[in-house]
Amino acid sequence: MKLSHRITNLTGGGSDGWDVFNKARAMVRAGVAVTELTQGEHDIRTHPAILDAMDAAARAGKTGYSSVPGEPDLRDTVAARIQDRTGVPTGRDNVLITPGGQAALFAAHNATCDPGDVGLFIDPYYATYPGTIRGVAAIAKPIQAHAEDGFQPRAAEIDAAADGATSLLINTPNNPTGVVYSRDTLEGIAGVCRKRDLWLISDEVYDTQVWEGAHLSPRALPDMIERTLVVGSLSKSHAMTGSRCGWVVGPEEAIAHLINLATHTTYGVPGFVQAAGNFALNAGPWLEDEVAAPFRRRRALAQEVLQAQNVLRLVPAQGAMYLMLDIRATGMSGEAFAYALLDAHHIAVMPGESFGKAAAGHIRVAMTVDDAGFTAALKTLCDFAGQIANTRAAE
Amino acid sequence: MKLSHRITNLTGGGSDGWDVFNKARAMVRAGVAVTELTQGEHDIRTHPAILDAMDAAARAGKTGYSSVPGEPDLRDTVAARIQDRTGVPTGRDNVLITPGGQAALFAAHNATCDPGDVGLFIDPYYATYPGTIRGVAAIAKPIQAHAEDGFQPRAAEIDAAADGATSLLINTPNNPTGVVYSRDTLEGIAGVCRKRDLWLISDEVYDTQVWEGAHLSPRALPDMIERTLVVGSLSKSHAMTGSRCGWVVGPEEAIAHLINLATHTTYGVPGFVQAAGNFALNAGPWLEDEVAAPFRRRRALAQEVLQAQNVLRLVPAQGAMYLMLDIRATGMSGEAFAYALLDAHHIAVMPGESFGKAAAGHIRVAMTVDDAGFTAALKTLCDFAGQIANTRAAE
Repeated sequence: MKLSHRITNLTGGGSDGWDVFNKARAMVRAGVAVTELTQGEHDIRTHPAILDAMDAAARAGKTGYSSVPGEPDLRDTVAARIQDRTGVPTGRDNVLITPGGQAALFAAHNATCDPGDVGLFIDPYYATYPGTIRGVAAIAKPIQAHAEDGFQPRAAEIDAAADGATSLLINTPNNPTGVVYSRDTLEGIAGVCRKRDLWLISDEVYDTQVWEGAHLSPRALPDMIERTLVVGSLSKSHAMTGSRCGWVVGPEEAIAHLINLATHTTYGVPGFVQAAGNFALNAGPWLEDEVAAPFRRRRALAQEVLQAQNVLRLVPAQGAMYLMLDIRATGMSGEAFAYALLDAHHIAVMPGESFGKAAAGHIRVAMTVDDAGFTAALKTLCDFAGQIANTRAAE
Repeated sequence: MKLSHRITNLTGGGSDGWDVFNKARAMVRAGVAVTELTQGEHDIRTHPAILDAMDAAARAGKTGYSSVPGEPDLRDTVAARIQDRTGVPTGRDNVLITPGGQAALFAAHNATCDPGDVGLFIDPYYATYPGTIRGVAAIAKPIQAHAEDGFQPRAAEIDAAADGATSLLINTPNNPTGVVYSRDTLEGIAGVCRKRDLWLISDEVYDTQVWEGAHLSPRALPDMIERTLVVGSLSKSHAMTGSRCGWVVGPEEAIAHLINLATHTTYGVPGFVQAAGNFALNAGPWLEDEVAAPFRRRRALAQEVLQAQNVLRLVPAQGAMYLMLDIRATGMSGEAFAYALLDAHHIAVMPGESFGKAAAGHIRVAMTVDDAGFTAALKTLCDFAGQIANTRAAE
């Protein structure tokens, strides 16, 4: 039986770039002790106080259909939080609660791209971006950022790619690079969006994890409030990856249509999950600080380790839970290096090539294992790279 | 800013048919005691034993990303259940767990309809059907079933409508009519699907609520296993509407692509919800019998009440939690009758017109309030209809 072109071409026909990850997982299943620095998942679980709130809500009867746009109290909490953090007036009607950030990304593209429209995104990119755009029968078009720019995208190159485009998807703080887009970068991007009449879909799920500089939401830039859809989530900020609770924030008219879409795609988010989310967001900064602290600490540990060598170059690690390392001095591709490291030392990292063409010759290291294990693995990784570079120099 | 044509035309431009429902809700908010016989939601909550299982799973650490296709144990449970109930060989790779039945309906259409393809569905229909098809940029085309056939659709009329179609969506036991499709009806439908090379999307979320006859899954008919996608859910069978846990069952190749789609649309279902669902499905028949019992009881009560009058005609009430009543003897439309009943007696029912053209002159009564309240409301409804019919006869 014939399946739709859209669904059979979601991944663009190639590998999904997760081969190293899958190999590492297979080794783990076979009993090998692998240090996995691959996935963006905390090494802590959701805080028990959040689980208390979820259980209490379920016992109190919040097990029936919830309000499709989101429960009013959670929508108000998200609106107030966004307004506090960005200064942009935001109310309940600017917020749709979604079952996770990925559902928000999909909804935002469904709302802005008709079949055959071009959806732009920045390379390197989070793995699902092109498939999300193809999933609404639009054309996924990457724009490469450059290692020599610290992976800050160039406005002129976005402009040059914008024919036929209706949307541009960006992500800051960025996965996979760990870069936080500068005000200059975001003003350039906003300028292109205004000039080319693009929706800006701004994925800000790492906005509580900034180690250097400050996060700027482009919705706060001049004349951007009416053309920006912000994607947010509790996954990264509150270690609630499994709860699938996120949101889209945007203009009221767009949100009204997105609510309509939600009725036809997901029909709401469990009320007990929303109660847990509302508790988490109102718990105050201690909770999100506690979730962010390990990454802040490990980033500092990593900087120490990396200062002791000169083969690997760290892309400015300004936010999110990743380090992007330039390994080109080894003469290897990111993929070859990742496989070699996995084979030789049972340490799994993601090849830069998993995230598009722009990060070739890089690896992404997730800071998602305990401090001691992380530091030891990073030292081993550095030594391994150093040996390869030395051998190469001697040849 | 321009939104996509797809999202701005989800509802086809007209009213969504829920005006009476919304008016009733507004009256409730204003303090009026309204008997609401509108929504398909149980008057009980999710069983505490299921909530225990959910809480235990969350405390045990099931709060991280779950497996996108669904947790292996839940997929196995669903597969075994489907195989037991239908006799059709079904394994884990035939099952995708989704965040509710609506997400399953959307995914099934995304997989089978490309933009511009026709997605067929039967009128009267559950409210989201046409919008779900439009949500994947396909053309939603209704085929009317007829009151004089007890709303069993005619294969010849489906055949006549099938040009350009890639899928047909059916629902048995049926919402809104309460009809269970007969073997003859389903064999006719299967014949058209084979002849016209259609995917059959079979929404079977009420399959545990059958009062008369037996539920037959069309996937079990000859040569249908390779072209049928079954949509199921825990919502109705286990009073877990708010948990958003459902599934698609279909051929392995289709499921593999649907898993890919899930990665890009929802990224899995909370692990603690899946653990609750797995507990519920393994709890044995007592749990689903307990959930179904009130509807079985109220259907019997309704039959008694209706036997005492001869104005309203009951469409064969064979399954699901609804009664469909033919009110044409009053000379009113379903909508006019529903408004008049709400105004005169503060009883809210859904006009047949809310579910398409085929059920005009009917009302849908959800059996979702306690027995005494339900019986009293139905008696009042019958008396009201009788008075209108008498006045009309006297004119």
